[in-house]
Amino acid sequence: MRPIDGAEMSGEVYAGIDLGGTDIKGGLVTTHGEIRARDTLPTQAELGPAGVLDRMASLVDMLQKKYPDGNVKAVGIGVPGQVIVKKGLLVEAPNLPGWNNILVAEEMFKRIGIPVFLDNDANMAGLGEYSYGAGKGCREMLMVTLGTGVGGGLILSGTVYRGASGGAGEFGHMIVCRDGELCTCGRKGCLEAYIGTRGILRTLREKLVVEESSLGDIPPEEVTPRDISRAAEAGDKTAKAVLEEAGRWLGVAVGSVANLLNLERAVIGGGVAAAGEFILSPAREAAAETTLKVSRAALEIVPASLGNAAGLCGAARLAMDFED
Amino acid sequence: MRPIDGAEMSGEVYAGIDLGGTDIKGGLVTTHGEIRARDTLPTQAELGPAGVLDRMASLVDMLQKKYPDGNVKAVGIGVPGQVIVKKGLLVEAPNLPGWNNILVAEEMFKRIGIPVFLDNDANMAGLGEYSYGAGKGCREMLMVTLGTGVGGGLILSGTVYRGASGGAGEFGHMIVCRDGELCTCGRKGCLEAYIGTRGILRTLREKLVVEESSLGDIPPEEVTPRDISRAAEAGDKTAKAVLEEAGRWLGVAVGSVANLLNLERAVIGGGVAAAGEFILSPAREAAAETTLKVSRAALEIVPASLGNAAGLCGAARLAMDFED
Repeated sequence: MRPIDGAEMSGEVYAGIDLGGTDIKGGLVTTHGEIRARDTLPTQAELGPAGVLDRMASLVDMLQKKYPDGNVKAVGIGVPGQVIVKKGLLVEAPNLPGWNNILVAEEMFKRIGIPVFLDNDANMAGLGEYSYGAGKGCREMLMVTLGTGVGGGLILSGTVYRGASGGAGEFGHMIVCRDGELCTCGRKGCLEAYIGTRGILRTLREKLVVEESSLGDIPPEEVTPRDISRAAEAGDKTAKAVLEEAGRWLGVAVGSVANLLNLERAVIGGGVAAAGEFILSPAREAAAETTLKVSRAALEIVPASLGNAAGLCGAARLAMDFED
Repeated sequence: MRPIDGAEMSGEVYAGIDLGGTDIKGGLVTTHGEIRARDTLPTQAELGPAGVLDRMASLVDMLQKKYPDGNVKAVGIGVPGQVIVKKGLLVEAPNLPGWNNILVAEEMFKRIGIPVFLDNDANMAGLGEYSYGAGKGCREMLMVTLGTGVGGGLILSGTVYRGASGGAGEFGHMIVCRDGELCTCGRKGCLEAYIGTRGILRTLREKLVVEESSLGDIPPEEVTPRDISRAAEAGDKTAKAVLEEAGRWLGVAVGSVANLLNLERAVIGGGVAAAGEFILSPAREAAAETTLKVSRAALEIVPASLGNAAGLCGAARLAMDFED
């Protein structure tokens, strides 16, 4: 955290943008992590890079109008793809058609005239939680996002860890069971194949064959992880068992990573993490069983605290750090 | 690497010591990684910390006598246990009875009057290969030592990565198969349970039940990994299949870590790695299948090149880096 000084009083803020396949989230964030304005625009990915860049520029304008006292020093953007941070270059983004080798930072600067910095969205969610959320005060942190996919971001020795070519953090594609369940990536036995939405629903279907559950009343293709959480809250045993199973897989994987990296904290976010302790508590148990003594003593598994603002807060923080 | 200057000409060297349960290896190493003198003493662990510290001091003396022109600037020591590097403190060492909370650096300094620095032995093997061996020129490296146990050391962003409390690098205890084979650590499905010596010999025994092999002539309790390598070299199909199986497990685990850390290089050393391509080639294949595109492109799996001098070279390098 930075020291409190006169800067914030005069309205110094950083814009954080979280670019997704469906919508663009934006916010103006102070150095203390306070969000002074916030807004969202549909991405309209079909417009292609130039059109979406225009929309991101509009979003910055909209935010500025919502907080006219704000003096936007710089902009950070988290994008769903591989980034070369130094160049502000998006190499490729599987969910954004046409975004290959786009100099996003430069293109945005042309539109808004404020310095722009770029990184991967999972890294930014990690940096957000680390700077202002559930990761505050630690130095070695794994951010996990549970959703359709299982994403990861690493903060090591107090900074975003990106690896040799910006590809670090693919926690969901660590193999937890060689030749195991088929993953959407085409490989077998990835963690995501067990605790991504599809994996969780597969576990549910397997259990419904032999168990009674309120979830049996919903057409199988319509069940969502949210339904499972609700059923668990209402006391449904099958729902609880499904979430417990996902939690244990998560714990084994987090524990393995803790053995390798001697983490201080694993911060669990994403839509599926709304199941809370139904997932976290078995995850803690399995992680404790998996880790060796030293790493077990150091590790905490905690829920994310910034919700879907983590990415934009992290992106704003990236801009602060680079502008520094 | 440091620039070549007058220092080396005048005999400036750093002592590196690799303390093991069986013997103490030592060497005098220049900043360019040239070993000017080298020697080994039995550890005699039964003497306890004070006695073994005396022996390490004697070893430094012996090395100095072997290279009288050498001006020993500092000493680095790699120890088989958990270390608090800043304090030069060995917290505990499972294979060295009585070594609990020993201020090794301070105690050694009392004996030899030269600055002493301390770290974990697996980290030092990694630092050695990174500075002077098979890891030269990369920045993100995993060192793997294959032997009775499966050890690991990490170099991330060009420096030794130790984690929250010095426990990082336990690659051998990452879970590759939940509820899998029993590991010596008491857990199930650790990588070490598959590719540690015991795991390799178990795979062999399983295959010998149904397959013909020259290894069937050796009493089962006497077979060593070395025998398996030799048999593979002589064309024995079962021996090859056993090493291939170990190699594939190794590759899956290295590939998983590469997905997480986007490594540039995995350097494979230790006694069992003497099997060379019989293990490395299936490991490369399995790692390529396991890694996502970006991380696959960045990753090389290579044999270690410093043999059992890696640890002492790394320890000497630690001393150089701290004295700098």
